[in-house]
Amino acid sequence: MNYMLKDENAIYYECGYSCDNALYLRLGSEAFLITDSRYMIEAQESVRDAQVVIDSDLYGAAAKLLEKSKIKKIVFDPKEWTVAGYEKISSHCKIAFKAVADYSHKKRIIKSDDELKILAKAAKLGAKAFDKLANVFKKEGAGKDEFHLTYMARSALSDFGKRELSFNPIVAIGANAAKPHAMPTHRILRKDDLLLVDAGLKYKRYCSDRTRTVRFDKNFAFNTKQAFESKKRQKAYDAVRKAHDSAITQARSGMKAAEVDALARDIITRAGFGEYFVHSTGHGVGLDIHEMPYISSKSDAIIEDGMVYTIEPGIYIPGKFGIRIEDMVAMVDGKAIVLEG
Amino acid sequence: MNYMLKDENAIYYECGYSCDNALYLRLGSEAFLITDSRYMIEAQESVRDAQVVIDSDLYGAAAKLLEKSKIKKIVFDPKEWTVAGYEKISSHCKIAFKAVADYSHKKRIIKSDDELKILAKAAKLGAKAFDKLANVFKKEGAGKDEFHLTYMARSALSDFGKRELSFNPIVAIGANAAKPHAMPTHRILRKDDLLLVDAGLKYKRYCSDRTRTVRFDKNFAFNTKQAFESKKRQKAYDAVRKAHDSAITQARSGMKAAEVDALARDIITRAGFGEYFVHSTGHGVGLDIHEMPYISSKSDAIIEDGMVYTIEPGIYIPGKFGIRIEDMVAMVDGKAIVLEG
Repeated sequence: MNYMLKDENAIYYECGYSCDNALYLRLGSEAFLITDSRYMIEAQESVRDAQVVIDSDLYGAAAKLLEKSKIKKIVFDPKEWTVAGYEKISSHCKIAFKAVADYSHKKRIIKSDDELKILAKAAKLGAKAFDKLANVFKKEGAGKDEFHLTYMARSALSDFGKRELSFNPIVAIGANAAKPHAMPTHRILRKDDLLLVDAGLKYKRYCSDRTRTVRFDKNFAFNTKQAFESKKRQKAYDAVRKAHDSAITQARSGMKAAEVDALARDIITRAGFGEYFVHSTGHGVGLDIHEMPYISSKSDAIIEDGMVYTIEPGIYIPGKFGIRIEDMVAMVDGKAIVLEG
Repeated sequence: MNYMLKDENAIYYECGYSCDNALYLRLGSEAFLITDSRYMIEAQESVRDAQVVIDSDLYGAAAKLLEKSKIKKIVFDPKEWTVAGYEKISSHCKIAFKAVADYSHKKRIIKSDDELKILAKAAKLGAKAFDKLANVFKKEGAGKDEFHLTYMARSALSDFGKRELSFNPIVAIGANAAKPHAMPTHRILRKDDLLLVDAGLKYKRYCSDRTRTVRFDKNFAFNTKQAFESKKRQKAYDAVRKAHDSAITQARSGMKAAEVDALARDIITRAGFGEYFVHSTGHGVGLDIHEMPYISSKSDAIIEDGMVYTIEPGIYIPGKFGIRIEDMVAMVDGKAIVLEG
């Protein structure tokens, strides 16, 4: 199979190295990592199973390699390549370019044993960082607004800049948590507020992803046992927690992704909150924070051993509150195990 | 002129709003901002001079609008659109799609008076943040490694998460500064070390960009008067400073960008360091950190009033040290004024 890659994580997956200006070509038994001179030393030290080609004109260099090769057909992901980049490479040669959407993500859907270990470590470090963050919030969280709390989450998750984050953390209070992709506001954290934190970090470039929703008081912890003052809120919380726990306990290799989604969704629907669970139950996690499989009501994908994905049911009552509980699971021996070490 | 945009800043420039999942169409006298329901409220509140269209399938909605319209030709930037996105929109209609590289950047090359005010404010806030950072480094910098120092720079520039950064700050010590795009290492900051900081923040979505190279001691400041211990280092520093100052003093509207580049480059070449000035003298700054005009030895672009760009000559001696001094200038009444308030 011949293919060409542009996406940073897709390239890293193939050869153990990538940077923000690189292309990767697999041409029969040969492979090439093309980058510019700024990255020469790093690339030569790190790339495995591919020749490093240094050129200030990446696309020109790729076109030349394609012309020289004797291949007749090459695969590319049309979601990965810009029109300009694709044209530069394809306009000069007679090779057939075959568009395969999500080509690299499809290759990466089953994780190797090494990847499973790395993802487990990422999840473990992520969970530990939540514990650290709980201590920070207990000491200094009260009276701070969501911007400041988000910054504190960045600091704790990144261990003060030592680690990269999987994404910008979401820290949302009360009604702001009702937006699944909440942006920070100047809302202030006060005692007994509902507090939602969705955050992750990277370990060896692999992502962790975790969400907890808690009642903020002196003794709070980012665990899944929470007691809220309001009955409606507690009812919603209990439904989300049950949906989360049941989906994890009952997910099996061989199920359709839509069936796993239903394990969570049916519980929330039966509790009367179905219309407020406005997103899918989960998504794959790996080098990218969002990968295959997508645990959605519309997905026919078959769950298999070696897949890693999130289970993250939620209930969002506009103007009132939002609740989500999220963990990463790996399919091992037919069942889902929570990746948290 | 009909055109379609995908880039977040290109869209913001047109209608005062954008998000990470949006398309913009200008079709004759009508304009449309297409996004999904997560962004509906924000979009409806903020978009000016365009109709907000909410659809989970952005490309499908755009294709429908194009089909309904009576236009015959539309411009798009092939560097902005993926092959998949472009195909989705273009495959179903008979309109002629005209590829114009850098279409939005070309529109944005001359800044309006409002934009100039915003960029001046961004530069002023950026300069103030450098002063704050100097105090932080004086108190706590010694003994910290580049990862930690970079984190401190993020904190100071973002005012603890309140502001977005233009890019991830570069904080490089001694020989590490010899890489123009240095990544942090575990190298520790010690008294009398050469310290290079390249950082910027955003104000109303517009970027600041600034670099200072200093000798780190108790009384250091991020100004351009620096006294280094080593004679060679001082000689290189003085050449960079003279190149920086001369280019700013002598740049004129009507010059070619290559002539402005030469104002800086000739001084460094005459000082004997020409081969170590390995990049262009500067780049435009606006909503994107890198915009037109590019102040490069190869650029025929004509400098005009209203352009904003950096002057950032540097000398990089591999394995030894790197020096760069960078400020943003605006062309006003034919001359370059430093944007620092």
